[in-house]
Amino acid sequence: MDKKFDYESLFSKSSLEIEISKVSHAKYDFAVAYPPPETIPLNGLLEGLSEGLSKEGKDLAYYPDVMGALSLREFVCQKLQEDRGFFSDPDEIMITQGSAEANNLVIQALTDPGDTVITEEFVYLGTLRQLRRAKANVFGSKLDENGLIPEELENLIKKLIKKGKKIKYIYTIPEFQNPTGSTLPLERRVQILKIAEKYLIPLIEDDCYVDLRFEGKTQPSFKSLDSSGLVIHVASFSKLLAPGLRMGYVIADISVLKRMMSFKSSQSSQFVSLAIEGFLTKNMDNHKNKIREILKEKCNAMTTALGENFGGINAKWSNPGGGCYVWLTMPERINLTKLQGVCFDKGVGFIPGSSFSPEGLGDNCARLCFAYESPEKNRDGINLFGEILHQLNLI
Amino acid sequence: MDKKFDYESLFSKSSLEIEISKVSHAKYDFAVAYPPPETIPLNGLLEGLSEGLSKEGKDLAYYPDVMGALSLREFVCQKLQEDRGFFSDPDEIMITQGSAEANNLVIQALTDPGDTVITEEFVYLGTLRQLRRAKANVFGSKLDENGLIPEELENLIKKLIKKGKKIKYIYTIPEFQNPTGSTLPLERRVQILKIAEKYLIPLIEDDCYVDLRFEGKTQPSFKSLDSSGLVIHVASFSKLLAPGLRMGYVIADISVLKRMMSFKSSQSSQFVSLAIEGFLTKNMDNHKNKIREILKEKCNAMTTALGENFGGINAKWSNPGGGCYVWLTMPERINLTKLQGVCFDKGVGFIPGSSFSPEGLGDNCARLCFAYESPEKNRDGINLFGEILHQLNLI
Repeated sequence: MDKKFDYESLFSKSSLEIEISKVSHAKYDFAVAYPPPETIPLNGLLEGLSEGLSKEGKDLAYYPDVMGALSLREFVCQKLQEDRGFFSDPDEIMITQGSAEANNLVIQALTDPGDTVITEEFVYLGTLRQLRRAKANVFGSKLDENGLIPEELENLIKKLIKKGKKIKYIYTIPEFQNPTGSTLPLERRVQILKIAEKYLIPLIEDDCYVDLRFEGKTQPSFKSLDSSGLVIHVASFSKLLAPGLRMGYVIADISVLKRMMSFKSSQSSQFVSLAIEGFLTKNMDNHKNKIREILKEKCNAMTTALGENFGGINAKWSNPGGGCYVWLTMPERINLTKLQGVCFDKGVGFIPGSSFSPEGLGDNCARLCFAYESPEKNRDGINLFGEILHQLNLI
Repeated sequence: MDKKFDYESLFSKSSLEIEISKVSHAKYDFAVAYPPPETIPLNGLLEGLSEGLSKEGKDLAYYPDVMGALSLREFVCQKLQEDRGFFSDPDEIMITQGSAEANNLVIQALTDPGDTVITEEFVYLGTLRQLRRAKANVFGSKLDENGLIPEELENLIKKLIKKGKKIKYIYTIPEFQNPTGSTLPLERRVQILKIAEKYLIPLIEDDCYVDLRFEGKTQPSFKSLDSSGLVIHVASFSKLLAPGLRMGYVIADISVLKRMMSFKSSQSSQFVSLAIEGFLTKNMDNHKNKIREILKEKCNAMTTALGENFGGINAKWSNPGGGCYVWLTMPERINLTKLQGVCFDKGVGFIPGSSFSPEGLGDNCARLCFAYESPEKNRDGINLFGEILHQLNLI
């Protein structure tokens, strides 16, 4: 054949063309969603893996259990009981490639094109993309500094029902929400769960930042408060250990897991499971304490610099007690969606609020990741951000 | 809520209920699809990982490139050029969770429910399951001891076209086919490629056993013979290193990769990539030689025992020059589909031919994995198999 074959007419109706993008980084990269690279326990993971391989290495010859390595699922049960206050059975846990795969499988199992789904008004970009790929109609529910507002959520549900919509599920990150950094207090969780029960709407709880608290008290998980079975609990080792491991997990009703299984391409890596279990079994508390100290210093450096640069104008920013992000709200006249490119070119990366909004709102907002760069770069980068806006006569 | 929530009404139309099965093993387990466990280079992988982490460990803080670690893709390019005779660009390679994910993404990108797909008449179980999940109509094309028969393939294509079917693609394992162990000679590959070009049907070449040859000559890959762009090349590190790593790759036209991306839940693990690249860069040839010797001994032990036990009846078995499987064809009166359970209970595990057939044919055939058990167990297990059939007055 002279001409290269054109596949266009063969693609399945359910497939979409996804651009294969390469990530570029600004000098001061607050656009990322990475934990502190200096906390990654490279030697500890190697040691954990080495021990695991000497005990269970021969298992690498097997195709792993479809639900993931049993020993890691047992470890997760113990972690959830200690950290998140609920019992689960290893049979209800599926090990996944980060929380990304967990969320994607839940979304594929529960979403038909045109289905109605509720998220926070600003929602984690990865999940928003997955929901769009599943052709869901996504409605954002109002947030304040304490996360989802129960009354607003119920009003939205009523409004959608009135329009004849059946709401398939609610997706939320209750602890250090991505992108706003808010944490839902206990009372709101109880109220929201009552609403979910009243309207029989499942609730996907994405708990991927829970290990990163350096101030205040971790709130009980939705799952620990739930007796209805409506809560699907998703979490990850990406923030606690490293995104490059690609490992997370999901706890759900067995009927949901069986449906998720029909979209799962492969079992999760036994090799990575052994490293994680080996390391965390011995080092969980020490490691968490180390991360927390580093995160706190980085967060302080960023919020202090925000105060010095934007304290005089009508700007607000969150003061998170953990997680990775500060949420910045500028005066309405400052359009950060439009300024993203200019700032990136001059050395400051961030993601504008509009990228996280199902409706494209939030031009004057931005998510700033404080976890990745050093405290010094957090300070210098925010100072440069201030200078850029000053040079543009915006502040 | 008193009663547990019932999700049944919420599941997406595209989801299927998949039973979450636990694998059980017979005393002599010839049912598995595992490489020799004693060849897994546990220390070598640890060393490779250790080196990789000391050089690139900070990258674990990043979410990996959507296509997989660049350094591993570059290594794969080099391996393909040396071992499979074709050049490719790292941008055309996607790292996946084993070949399982690679195949599944290709199938999802190219298959609508009801689509017509051609495979070998006995086809790898995992792919057959994926095709069924995608609701493809699968037609098996006749095999002999040299794999797909080009004339039979063209006849099948003509027959299907006559019936008004549009054939979406052909899936084949040309080297040590699973389950029959056959290898397609060069002339047949050339003929089959011509047929694919004549009818404009893409060909998925699953090359996952290519590294396991202990006798004879590796045949050129379809991809190396292809100038049309019709060949999609899939391969894996599962057999060369260990299934528990969960890593493979696919080379395809960028337009296909973009569609596959819409079903990919997560990037592949940087951690596993570093271990594989670190180990193979230094040890590929030594490691391959080690596997080959062990495989040869195991294969001989099994075929010798088959001769001793079934040489006197009208049975046939393949004499593979590599891979993991011997294909056993018993006289028609011996129904191995029905005997599978009895034999398993008495200690001999195998998978009957009918499990691999889109049409459920092949009751008198079985796939016997010689790679997993020791030579002694291969011998003893086949002896026991003979005894069982003798006790049942079948031989």
